[in-house]
Order: sequence, then C-alpha cells, then structure tokens
Amino acid sequence: VNSEDQIIQLIKKKLGSPKSPYGIGDDAALIDPQHLITTDFLVEGVDFKRTEDLKRVGRKVINVNLSDLAAMGAVPEMALGYAAFPKGTKRSQLERFLAGLKAAANRYKVRLIGGDISEAKQWIAGAVMIGKVAKGKPFLRSGAKSGDDIWVTGTLGGSILGKHLDFEPRVREALFLREDLPVSSCIDLSDGLGQDLPRLLKCSGKGAHILPESIPVSRDAHRLSKKTRKSALEHAFQDGEDFELLFTLSPRFQKRLLQRWKRRFKTPLTRIGQVTSQKKCRLAGELWKGFDHFR
Amino acid sequence: VNSEDQIIQLIKKKLGSPKSPYGIGDDAALIDPQHLITTDFLVEGVDFKRTEDLKRVGRKVINVNLSDLAAMGAVPEMALGYAAFPKGTKRSQLERFLAGLKAAANRYKVRLIGGDISEAKQWIAGAVMIGKVAKGKPFLRSGAKSGDDIWVTGTLGGSILGKHLDFEPRVREALFLREDLPVSSCIDLSDGLGQDLPRLLKCSGKGAHILPESIPVSRDAHRLSKKTRKSALEHAFQDGEDFELLFTLSPRFQKRLLQRWKRRFKTPLTRIGQVTSQKKCRLAGELWKGFDHFR
Repeated sequence: VNSEDQIIQLIKKKLGSPKSPYGIGDDAALIDPQHLITTDFLVEGVDFKRTEDLKRVGRKVINVNLSDLAAMGAVPEMALGYAAFPKGTKRSQLERFLAGLKAAANRYKVRLIGGDISEAKQWIAGAVMIGKVAKGKPFLRSGAKSGDDIWVTGTLGGSILGKHLDFEPRVREALFLREDLPVSSCIDLSDGLGQDLPRLLKCSGKGAHILPESIPVSRDAHRLSKKTRKSALEHAFQDGEDFELLFTLSPRFQKRLLQRWKRRFKTPLTRIGQVTSQKKCRLAGELWKGFDHFR
Repeated sequence: VNSEDQIIQLIKKKLGSPKSPYGIGDDAALIDPQHLITTDFLVEGVDFKRTEDLKRVGRKVINVNLSDLAAMGAVPEMALGYAAFPKGTKRSQLERFLAGLKAAANRYKVRLIGGDISEAKQWIAGAVMIGKVAKGKPFLRSGAKSGDDIWVTGTLGGSILGKHLDFEPRVREALFLREDLPVSSCIDLSDGLGQDLPRLLKCSGKGAHILPESIPVSRDAHRLSKKTRKSALEHAFQDGEDFELLFTLSPRFQKRLLQRWKRRFKTPLTRIGQVTSQKKCRLAGELWKGFDHFR
C-alpha cells in the first residue's frame, strides 16, 4: 500500500462506510447531532526530528486536531492525549511535551480529560479531540456547488521551514465563517493544496478552475525554492502541513465575506478560483497534470 | 521517568487535575453526564511481536478499549481507530489488521466512525472508544468501603502465553453488574493484581485483607511457573494483561451476586478478600511486601 488515499480506500472497503454521513473521510466524525470527534498523531522521524523541542511537538499535537475541528466549523471542547516514547526519556523532556500540550489547549480553552501512555522506540504523540457544532450542520467536504468561489486562508508552501510546527490553527476564522456565512464545503490543508483541493472536489463531485497567479505563495515557499529545483508556486501547491482552511462559498457573499473578514482578522484570505461542474481541474485554462488523485 | 504511575503523577501535576470527578486516573473520562471516552494503543515490540498475526492485534486494539469501558460499567457505542506502520507494510497485512478490528467491533456492536493513519518504524495501533453509562453514575476506582468483598472475574496470570492477545473483554459481565448490583468500585486488571488492586485501594483511601489461597490462579500461570523461577501464585499477582474485572461489593449482596452470576455466565467469579479501613494490604495476616505502590 502506498498513498494515504489508497489506504483510506482500503479501510473504507474493509470496514464499510459508516452510517453517519460524516464518517471516515471528513476531518472529524459525528458522535451525536452536536458533537464531532477527531484524532491525529505525530511520529518522530516522520512529523518531527528526534532533536526537536518537545514543547513544539506537544503544541502541534493539539493544534493539528484543532485544525481538523476548524475544518468542520466546530467549537473545540475537550481532548485526550496519548503518547509513546523511548524508555530513556528524561523527565525534563516529558515536561516540555506536557507544557506544549497545555499551552495550546489553554489557548483555545480545550479541557484535557485523560489519555494513555506507553513505551516505543520513537516518540509518537497524538490527541483525540471533541468539538461542538454550535448550530446547524458541520462544514463538510461534499457541499461545493458549481460557480462557488474557492477561498484559502493564510499563505501556502514551505511550511517545513517552521510553520509545520508553529502554525496557528484557524479556529477563530472557522467559527466566524460558521456564524456568518453559508460556506458550502471546507477542508484543512494538511497534505498540500495539490492533494486537498482534489479531495474536496471529489467529495463534492465537482471540478475547478484555478488561477495560479492568485495562489497566496508564502515567503517560506520562495525561500525554499532557492534551495530546491522547484518554483515557489510548486511549493505552494505541493508542500504539506499548511493547516490553512480551503473553503467554497457562493459569489453572492464575496463582498460580505471580505468586509467582515478584514474587520476581524489579519489572516490573509484569497480567492483562488471557482468550482465548475466538469469533474476536471484547470489551471488558467490548462488541464492540471498533477490532478491524478481526481480519477 | 520510570513507572507508569510516576508518569501519570507528573501528567496530573503539569496538566492539573480536570474538574470532572472522572478525569485522568480512571479507566475512561466523562465527556457528558452519560458518555465516557477512553483511548488505549499497542506498540510493536512492547505489546506484541513483529511476527504476530495482525488480525489478533486489530482485535486487541478494540478489546483493550472495551475492557476500559467495562471497568466503568459503560455500554460501548463507537470507536475511532488509529495506526502508524512501516512503509513496507503489505496490503495483506493491513487487511489482517482491519479484519481483526472489524471482528471485535462487530462482536460488541461498536460502530467504527473514523481514524488516522501514519508512517512509523514500528507498528503502533490504537483506538478511541466512546461508551454510554446506561443509568446513574459509572463505576469508579474510588468508592470501595470498609467491609466490602473484593471480587475478581476469570483466572489470573500467565497471559503472555496467549490470553494477552485473545482475551474476552468483560463487557457483558460489567453490564450485568451495572444493572443488578451496587458495585462500590471497579478496575480492569491491565498491569496485574499486584499493581491494580493497590491502585483501586489508593483511589478509595482503603486497605485490604487478601486470602492468597483464594486467588484464582490460571492454568497458564502454572504452565509458566515451570519455566520461570516464580510460583504460579506470583504470576497471578504480578503478570499484566489479564483484562479481568476487579470490583468491590457489600457482603449483603454476596448471595444475590453468586446466584445470578452462575445463571448467566461461565466466567469464573472469585471472592479474594475484603476491604479494610487501615491503609495497608495484608496477605493472610502478613503485610504484603510487594505493596509499594501504595505509599
């Protein structure tokens, strides 16, 4: 088995799709009409280096789960932590990890209610988080409509230079959208725009027309492109762990969105294209070659 | 940091005790007045061998969490799975794992609603499980009263010979107790009677008088003692992963418990001693030397 999508397909096939419309596939699963649950974990050597400050790791454990709940427009409420670590782990290291966990949880008023610990060759740390959908249905990946604008928060690419550990989950932005606007679909960018946009469109049964010049390329994508063979735009498309929100909204609400957003947030917000009825993705007219996940 | 109890103390100190009376420390945490959540995971090389059939591992991932919910008298409802595994994992291995997960979940009507996967050097697999407390409060570790009988299900020791993977979580037994009897405290035996009984007594602020000859020593404890320097009784006290229930109940209900139990279950049920008000644990009158966790 290779890609995450292949594995998820296998899991769906073997375990059967859950009856809930918000089961395997969305960023969080529904446990009752008002509560969502999600779990996400980090692995040393895959998601962070052995030498990394464990406070950043603890913070990220909470923040990746917050980002999943944000993608569904849920208010985070409580979390369980879990971790496995090598026998020789020092008390001070564990304390750094716990300090990060606590700082991030406090920042978004998440109550830590329990967890599990064990031993492993490498650090593995995760959390389970429960959130509440304040009113109505959560944001899904499946509601994008033809003609909707496609929006993205923040700037994209090059997160490996630091943002992948220190990003701010878009909790407040998601709750603002949930309250004020009829967002038709939403996902958080964990595997890069080039993979997560196709995922959202596939769930919605739609295509898109993307304007490459509109993509908000981050400074770090530019910095990184000087060291790699890729352009900054390629980094913005392909790099994972941006943890920004990608959402769709009818163009009727464009003005209202922009006005209110500017009043409340410094977080950039960019319209990068439009949803189309053809199940294809075009970059400024050209068929997007990297769009293979879409088949 | 060495023992699990030390680590849990550190976690409590750093993260602060949660406001819920059923937070860090019990087998599951309360998420609302009727729902409990727990998470437990297994690590290759610690909890199972690299060569182990992954179907057994998948089953155990569900069953350890079922055992935690059983310890609190909750009806299991739904679960999220999570797993990290090496890049070279074959599709057939993943399928075995999923088959085990599904079989155990189906057996106890647990709905699998989502999860997370990643890559790691070794297999790590776990689940988050939510259960419902049918009526009244969940079983806690903290309610044992002086004079209560101490009961244990099944037989103890030697689980490494197979039971640690193939045990039956005591879900039905726990729900029967929950319905029919005023159990005063309960815990599942994951680290062995010698560690888990002190844990329960410490939470209750009590001691115990244990009758060593009454301990239900398993056949596997006897088999194992032939290969080790330990007696079968020592294995029954010290071996982990029995996943049996240890609970306390007023002696007034002894007759009712035994009569109804025999009618419903083949699972052995044994009275192994009595709760005392002195915060000491005595084995047939002698102070229990291995009782150091109690200080």
